[in-house]
Amino acid sequence: MNYFVVSESDHNALVAAAYSKRGYLEDEASDAARLCAEAARHGIRTHNAIKALHLDELLGSGSQGCVPGAEIIKKPSRFSAVEVWDAQRKLGQSTGYRALERCIELADTHGVGIVAVDNAFHYLWGGGYMVEAARRGYIAYTNCTSALAEVVPFQGKFATLGTNPHSWGFPTTDAIGFPMVVDWATSVVAFGRVEQFKREGMELPPNAAVDADGNPTQDPHKAAALMPFGAHKGYGLSLINEIVAGLIGGSLPTLRSRWIDEDDGEERAPCFFFQVIHPDAISSGVFAQNRNQAENIKAVIDDILDHGNENCMLPGQMEAEAAALSKTHGGLLFSEAELKEFNELSIECGLEPWDKDSLKEVTV
Amino acid sequence: MNYFVVSESDHNALVAAAYSKRGYLEDEASDAARLCAEAARHGIRTHNAIKALHLDELLGSGSQGCVPGAEIIKKPSRFSAVEVWDAQRKLGQSTGYRALERCIELADTHGVGIVAVDNAFHYLWGGGYMVEAARRGYIAYTNCTSALAEVVPFQGKFATLGTNPHSWGFPTTDAIGFPMVVDWATSVVAFGRVEQFKREGMELPPNAAVDADGNPTQDPHKAAALMPFGAHKGYGLSLINEIVAGLIGGSLPTLRSRWIDEDDGEERAPCFFFQVIHPDAISSGVFAQNRNQAENIKAVIDDILDHGNENCMLPGQMEAEAAALSKTHGGLLFSEAELKEFNELSIECGLEPWDKDSLKEVTV
Repeated sequence: MNYFVVSESDHNALVAAAYSKRGYLEDEASDAARLCAEAARHGIRTHNAIKALHLDELLGSGSQGCVPGAEIIKKPSRFSAVEVWDAQRKLGQSTGYRALERCIELADTHGVGIVAVDNAFHYLWGGGYMVEAARRGYIAYTNCTSALAEVVPFQGKFATLGTNPHSWGFPTTDAIGFPMVVDWATSVVAFGRVEQFKREGMELPPNAAVDADGNPTQDPHKAAALMPFGAHKGYGLSLINEIVAGLIGGSLPTLRSRWIDEDDGEERAPCFFFQVIHPDAISSGVFAQNRNQAENIKAVIDDILDHGNENCMLPGQMEAEAAALSKTHGGLLFSEAELKEFNELSIECGLEPWDKDSLKEVTV
Repeated sequence: MNYFVVSESDHNALVAAAYSKRGYLEDEASDAARLCAEAARHGIRTHNAIKALHLDELLGSGSQGCVPGAEIIKKPSRFSAVEVWDAQRKLGQSTGYRALERCIELADTHGVGIVAVDNAFHYLWGGGYMVEAARRGYIAYTNCTSALAEVVPFQGKFATLGTNPHSWGFPTTDAIGFPMVVDWATSVVAFGRVEQFKREGMELPPNAAVDADGNPTQDPHKAAALMPFGAHKGYGLSLINEIVAGLIGGSLPTLRSRWIDEDDGEERAPCFFFQVIHPDAISSGVFAQNRNQAENIKAVIDDILDHGNENCMLPGQMEAEAAALSKTHGGLLFSEAELKEFNELSIECGLEPWDKDSLKEVTV
């Protein structure tokens, strides 16, 4: 497929301009552009700037889900390694990056740091924060409650759970050249994929969706709700996000992001949970064959991918390969269709569209 | 099915005697009996005392995997909320309970506490420690590397991963009457189940095992290795345990628990990771409708299990129902076959076998 190479600074200037136009502060617009650039660089097309702005329109500043310029309130606490923030529906990317930075500071002192966030807005690509932490040498984890309830409980009929993702990052760059990042939703597929299957006239995979009566269906036109992956195991993982959010301050999942004008006293915003561990804090300091920690991780991974498993991939590997490609070509890679959407955005923001003919074109 | 009710003190006395006979100290034998009683009480038949003693014979004190009377060494650390221990292959249950207690102490001060354990021996039922923490009002998590490499990486051919379980516990007793405990291996089934399918002449579920050539098979006789659940997602979860263990001090998964007489400089013991969070530490203190934290969790769970989902189960519910049954009948419930095994154990330990006729019999 052919892609056009856009410089990161051009990309970020446009995305920041689009966020500024919607009332976001300069630093918020910059955080938003930063995460979109990370997503584009790592080939995460589902969370690029176009999708991010669409989500903001639908559920964020275009609705009541996100409040440009909101100030995060840090709650008083008697605990030293854990903080609770009321994000007051500040932009998810700004809240996410700040929570991650604070977790890193706490982990530098205590070995572990946690920031629990109430009243948040969608932070988009959870893996992006994990890549950042892992690149800087930390072990990191995040989960959040998704904007909407789209997933049925195991053996259930009606969507009462979010696609509730979990993301982990590990500092494996010295060992294998890139951070291992485990990052996925707890549904088999997302609704975006159901739409894609509809357009392409294809069947859904088995046990990915239920119809209006709660029966499993592979017909994307009949899909009324999604199913958790791995039966009761993915269901359990999805429940974790709901319970953690409920402990923080989140409320009924079926009301989430469904804002109404009168105040019925229920909360409607997602919650985040961020955690960072300093790798020195869990190191025994003694590794076999006098290896250091990175060499030990390399030995473990080499063993896993040996014995006939040489063609297996590691989580984060495809994203790392996409990032390497971006680096080689000196910019972010977008398809012609994506370029068209960015150029419509440029016009909307009163900026000069990118000149396709002046962009480097590469075949991947 | 019919079960015999054995008093917990009789059970614990016998199990402790069996462990003592193998050279374990009094407190170790008591920890071992305690976890076996928890497993039996919660209906976890795969981790009852008979299985625990068999595992100890095969991979523990009967091999080089576990050292009765070993002393745990706490490693020096500059971090306040995280500790690293060298268990020196002490009994897994003793190490597990101590690590959990220490995590709780750390969480009481810091909001979160972590104990990473190198050189451990199998702690058996991970969920048991989580039930304990959750019952006492804490959020807890543990993972460990399994004794043996029995699982292939996603799209792999050869077993290089353990069944590597994850277990989470949540303090939901005030909300729903029992602790929510998410607890499972990252393989679709365990090898014990493959043996059971063989005996019963049944087919394995799809994508649960591969044959010697690495091709998926549903024939239990051809199953050479297990597959992770949920394709790349369960594979990622299994890798997490290996990477965490590798960061702590664990070594090549394919050598784990495979002791040899000469010293080749490789480690062979599993690692544990324990974490406890104080629920006050992540509470915003503000819940919708003036609910308290427990009432908020109840509202969240009520919403999830409403709207046609009334028949869905929660993780930990079956175990809680088994525990309620044990309480009603005033003891631990064992089948006739299990009773026979316990009585053989009594004779081995020079104790009086339990008199079947004097035991209360119940139909469940």
